[in-house]
Order: sequence, then structure tokens, then C-alpha cells
Amino acid sequence: MTGVAILGFGTVGSGVYDVINTNSGVLELKSGDKIEVKKVLDLRDFPGNPVEKVLTKDFEEILNDPDIGIIAEAMGGVEPAFTFTKRALAMGKSVVTSNKELVAKHGPELMKLARTNGVSYLFEASVGGGIPIIRPLCVSLAADEILEISGILNGTTNYILTKMTEEGKSFDEVLKDAQQLGYAEANPAADVEGHDACRKIAILSSLAFGETVNYEHIYTEGITKITHIDIEYSKKLNCLIKLIGSSKKSKNGISAKVSPCLISKEHPLSAVNGVYNAIFVKGNMSGNTMYYGSGAGKLPTASAVVADIVDAVRHKGLTVNIGWDCDVQACVADIKEADVKAMIRIASDNFEAAKKSIIEVFGDVQFVDLDVQDDEFAIITNEETEGSMAEKVEKIATMSGVGEIRNLIRMEA
Amino acid sequence: MTGVAILGFGTVGSGVYDVINTNSGVLELKSGDKIEVKKVLDLRDFPGNPVEKVLTKDFEEILNDPDIGIIAEAMGGVEPAFTFTKRALAMGKSVVTSNKELVAKHGPELMKLARTNGVSYLFEASVGGGIPIIRPLCVSLAADEILEISGILNGTTNYILTKMTEEGKSFDEVLKDAQQLGYAEANPAADVEGHDACRKIAILSSLAFGETVNYEHIYTEGITKITHIDIEYSKKLNCLIKLIGSSKKSKNGISAKVSPCLISKEHPLSAVNGVYNAIFVKGNMSGNTMYYGSGAGKLPTASAVVADIVDAVRHKGLTVNIGWDCDVQACVADIKEADVKAMIRIASDNFEAAKKSIIEVFGDVQFVDLDVQDDEFAIITNEETEGSMAEKVEKIATMSGVGEIRNLIRMEA
Repeated sequence: MTGVAILGFGTVGSGVYDVINTNSGVLELKSGDKIEVKKVLDLRDFPGNPVEKVLTKDFEEILNDPDIGIIAEAMGGVEPAFTFTKRALAMGKSVVTSNKELVAKHGPELMKLARTNGVSYLFEASVGGGIPIIRPLCVSLAADEILEISGILNGTTNYILTKMTEEGKSFDEVLKDAQQLGYAEANPAADVEGHDACRKIAILSSLAFGETVNYEHIYTEGITKITHIDIEYSKKLNCLIKLIGSSKKSKNGISAKVSPCLISKEHPLSAVNGVYNAIFVKGNMSGNTMYYGSGAGKLPTASAVVADIVDAVRHKGLTVNIGWDCDVQACVADIKEADVKAMIRIASDNFEAAKKSIIEVFGDVQFVDLDVQDDEFAIITNEETEGSMAEKVEKIATMSGVGEIRNLIRMEA
Repeated sequence: MTGVAILGFGTVGSGVYDVINTNSGVLELKSGDKIEVKKVLDLRDFPGNPVEKVLTKDFEEILNDPDIGIIAEAMGGVEPAFTFTKRALAMGKSVVTSNKELVAKHGPELMKLARTNGVSYLFEASVGGGIPIIRPLCVSLAADEILEISGILNGTTNYILTKMTEEGKSFDEVLKDAQQLGYAEANPAADVEGHDACRKIAILSSLAFGETVNYEHIYTEGITKITHIDIEYSKKLNCLIKLIGSSKKSKNGISAKVSPCLISKEHPLSAVNGVYNAIFVKGNMSGNTMYYGSGAGKLPTASAVVADIVDAVRHKGLTVNIGWDCDVQACVADIKEADVKAMIRIASDNFEAAKKSIIEVFGDVQFVDLDVQDDEFAIITNEETEGSMAEKVEKIATMSGVGEIRNLIRMEA
């Protein structure tokens, strides 16, 4: 028997409790051992809930229980999760988690500590909720040099953009609906400003390239500026707007960013709708592969946490190696050096003058007009560096016929 | 150093040779050991090819080389691959393969033999070419009871159906193009009749449900009867026609089949075009997940074979467990008991009489007319058992107004 303790009985923690109890037969079959929840740490009481029997408010009780070999940390946030994780690993207990803040901030240190103590620190659920990605990356694609990883990494924003596209509603309206349905938090900033996707692409890049990518160095732009006019342009271009986190190897280091992006309806990521997420990987031998599933949600996330528990049980006394070199800090390239192609919306009271100005600066670009909006047009630029494009945008803003620059949305290459 | 021998220097075998040589640094990093091709078995000569240095025509030479710990079997077919694999495993060498015929026919016996000898028999490449699926199933979804697995499992047929849809060409025309481009074999039966997809869904079902599914018990129908008229109906229904292999748990056992299927453009499998393949999995906790990639192709398939080599190196002296119980034979349900919904095309010189007959037999169904074909219409049935539907089809064929039954295409539920 392997005893498990769960830290935090919120959405993910109670999901882990449910998965272990519901699928106990499956878990025994797949891990070769009986897996049992021995303790659940939470400061709240849950009167009438069966969890009461194993509830504790004292972490020391868990730490000092020799029957507990694995800890599922489902507290979220950096502290006290960080301290608890360090102490558990140091005591020779494996830790599994869905905590992306902690993994993005202290993952390498915790993996090192796990290795020193002959146990594992596993976090499949932290990068894609219920989307299996860590094992595909570190085992199934072990023969590949990963060239690029990208994806739709946040369910809240994908739900909002899908609804804006399908129902023609504004960002604010859909956000309100999403909050009522529980798909968005009361304070939605972490999702809609792209911070959640940023932490995930940082972890994914670290796993893909084997070096630690600091999320603070990744250019991040959310979806709050996307309007129904942008959606109209996307339809005209046979594209969809998705919040994309992407990371690839470039001559200047790892080129990573999070931003709304126009992707063609031919691209497999375009069929990823609602709260679903997907991760796209390009290997030098395997070519393009994609992994699709629920990016969040209680049971899918808990399923990923418990799969890590099963793997830790299978590797009792060993460290599961997931191919992220703890000691090497990746060089994240300056966003200005990245190649980009974009749609730029330009207000104008004199289209002819404006277009002349634009051709002067941007060269031969594609112009797009929208029937429903007659005081502006859009251009599709050629590919150039972000730095050069920013300069050109600044330049045209002062030129004849050109009014406000209403939005700039990157296009998937 | 781990020495590898490759059996067969055809498409996959030479791909394995290329991947090991091109990505040697990556392989050493990920496996923790240097991996080197020591011998390649082929009866042909390859004058001028660097492989000459390691070429042999004598399997005994490989078997008796103590430096060779892992054998990549890339011969295809049952014999002599089966005999060679058994002898290698018995000698304590791990075997990895892309050979779906052999795995579908003798996989359980070979896995058992591997376990007895403390080595591994791995076959990621046999089920989805370059699509990682075995590790996601057996590790990432270890906390789930798998309820259903389905997918687009054959690149040749998906290419043909995609081209028929996009270019309005006939099956025969596109097949000829595909043969010229090397996407279809000179004898295309194994692909277009669904046999290849059948073996793959048999292996996937065995992995998903942990019991051996005999491919000979799976109802299999290919795409040779699909015409451009069927494609026109699919467009009218906002669907696509795909060759789908599917398998799910039902009260009568495992309900599996391979057949062309109308799937909605909203379904993520609908964005899987050309030679790409994808596998869809439904777990009782993780919900829906999907895995997408190149279903075939030299380097993607070889990448999967070499990833298995890396895993065997990581687990030297151990058996990698992939969760397929060797001893239990699955009960495959009679296709007649499966639930099905279908589009049926009916020729008629008297629509009114025919529709009356159909409503009498099928009840309230949806009728679909096509502008380009005025001597027929189609119906969308309600869901019922295959057995009952077959009886009804037979019955209406004799009734007033009903002419030839031109096709029956199942619809994804």
C-alpha cells in the first residue's frame, strides 16, 4: 500500500480525492500497488463530507507519517506550497502537483532536491490541465530535437474568444457570462492578461529545450483589447483569433511570446474551441504532433495529478527523469529580434493618402476592408522583426491620412 | 554504450539508422548512454551507402554479439520477423518495432516472453506511426478508466478522402495520384479496404482496455465505395467523411469497428487532413483527449521506433510495462449489437412513395436532397442497433418507390 496525502481540499485537491476513490481498481492495476488517501490538509472543516475522517490542519502530522510516501500538493500559489514541498522532498516523499506558479518559479530547485533524495517531483497537471504532454515530450519524442512548441494554453481565454466568434458578443459581455458559469475567476487578470499562459509556455519551453526558461522574460499580451471588429476581420481572412503561447529555438536564443494570434482555419489548432486546449510540437524527426484535451476542470486536472502519483508508485525509490536540466538557464531572445507578420488596423479619413503612406513605409502589403466599419482598413504586413515593425507602426502614425492605430494582431506563420 | 541492430534496411529501417546518426547527441542526453548502430540486417547490398560498414546478411551474427542490447525490427510481416523477435528476446535483448501485423497477431506472446527475460518489447510506431499514443495511454492516463478510443488511423485513406473532398475527384483518380506520390502502395488493398486501420484499432483497444482484442473479430469496411456524391451529401450536412476505427466498452463486450464515417466539422478529428492521423481517447476522469501527428512517413515512424530504444536504454535490466494484460482475451461484441446512426442513399423514381415507405419502416427520419443528383435522396436514421438497421434496409429495398440502396455511411454519434 502507498499512502497519499493531499495538501488543499479545493477544486483540484477534492478532485484528486475523488479520482483515487472512484478509480481505485484501475490505479491498483496500473501501479501494481494499492493507493490510499491517508491525510488531507486543509484549514477549513468539511462537516458531513467523508474527507473528515482523514482531514488534518497540521502539516507535521503528514510529514512524520511513515505510511505516506507521496504528497499531492494542490494548494496553488508559491507559499506555503514551496516550503511544504521542500520539506516533503527532503523527508524522502515524492511530490506531485498542478501548481504552475510554483513550478515556473522554483521547478528546477525542487527537481534537484527530489533527485538528491531519490524521489520524484512531478507536475503534468501544471502545464495543460488534463492534456498529457510531459510524457509525450520526454518519452515519446525522446528521439527528437524539439524545434518549436506552441499552443492554446488557457481555457478561459479560449472560451471567451470562441464565444465572441460564434455569438458576436463583446469581450466584456462574454467575460461576464464566463464568470457566471465558473469558467472565469472574479479577478480574471491572470487569465485574460495572458499570465497563466505565460507560466505554462515557460514550463513547456523548459521541458522541450531542456533549459530553464524564466517566465518573466517572455513577452506577454492578453486578449482584453480584442473587439468584435477584430473578429470580423479574422472571418474575412478565413482565420480565427486565438491566444497563442509559442516558443522556438532561434539564432538569438529561445524566442518565446504569448499574444492573440490570427490562425488559419486549416491549422489543426483552429478546431480547438471552448475550454479545450491544445499543444503543438515540432520535432526535427517526428514533424508536427499535437495534444488536445481539457486545459482545466476539476477531474481532468485531478486525473493528471493522479497519473503522476501512479508513475511515482511505479518508480518507488527512483527519480522519474523528465529531461529538464535543472542547472542551465536558457537565454530568452529579445522580443524585438523575433520575426513577425501581423494584421494592423488603421483608422483613416483619407484611405488613398493613408495607403500611399503605408506602402512607402511597409512596401507591398495586402489591404483588407470591412463592410461594417468604414472609417478604417487593415493591412497584412510582410514578415519582419518585431523591432522593425514597431518602428514602422510608430512612423506611419504620423503620416498623411493615417489616424489611430486601432490594433495589431500577430499572424501565425 | 548500447549497441543497436536494425533488422531490415527499407523505409523504416533506414529511417531508424538516420535518426540515430543525426540525433546522437539528443539520444545520449535523453537516455544517459551513447546509442550506436552496430549491425544492420538486410539481404540486399547498398553499395556506396555508409550502412555498408555495418551490413550483415546473417541474423546469428547479431544474436551472438554481446554488444547489441536492443534490436529494432523493421522488416514488417509476420515471418521471419516473429522468429527473429522470439530468439532475440530469449537472448535477453529488448526488441522495438513498427510492425503492426506482428504486434496484432503475436503481441501478447512476445510481451510475455520479454517479461520472462527481463527485457522489453515496445511498439509505439506500430499504432500511429509518429503519433505518441502508447505513453499517453499507459502513463499520462494511468488514473483513468478508458471508455472509448477512436481515430483516423491510416494516412493513405485520409489523403484520398481529403483530396476527394477538396478537389471533387473520384476515388480512382485520387488513388492513382496517391500511388504516383508514394502515399499509396501499388497494391493498395491493405489501406483502402481498412485492414491496416483494423490492426491498429485492435492494438489500441488492447492497450486501452488491457485485454487482447483479436483483429479478426472487428467489423471492417474500407473506402472503395465512397463516391463524389457521398462527398456532396457530407458537405450539405456540414460533415466530412473520414475512415474511422473505433472501439468502446459496451454491455456486450468491446464494440469495435472500422468504417467510413460522417463526422461533424465541429469535431476535432475533422481538422485532421491529408496524411495526418489522430487518435481520440475518452477517459472517465480526463474526458476527451486527442493525439495528432504523422500516421506514417519514414522519419516520424523512425522517430517513434528510436524513442522506444531510448526508453529501453533508460530501463536497462527492467521490463517497461505498457499495461496490456497478455493473458486475457477480450470479448468483441457482435457488430449487430452495436448502436449506429447512418446516412442511407436511396435511388427512387417516385420520391413520395419512397418516403412514405421509409417512414413506415424507419419512423421519423431526416430527408436530404442533393441538387446535383435528382434520381435519389438520402435519409439520416435515428440511432438503433446495426442488426435492426440492416433488417430495415433489406425491408425497404422491396417497398414501393424504393430503388437501389446506393450507400450507407455511418455517422459519428
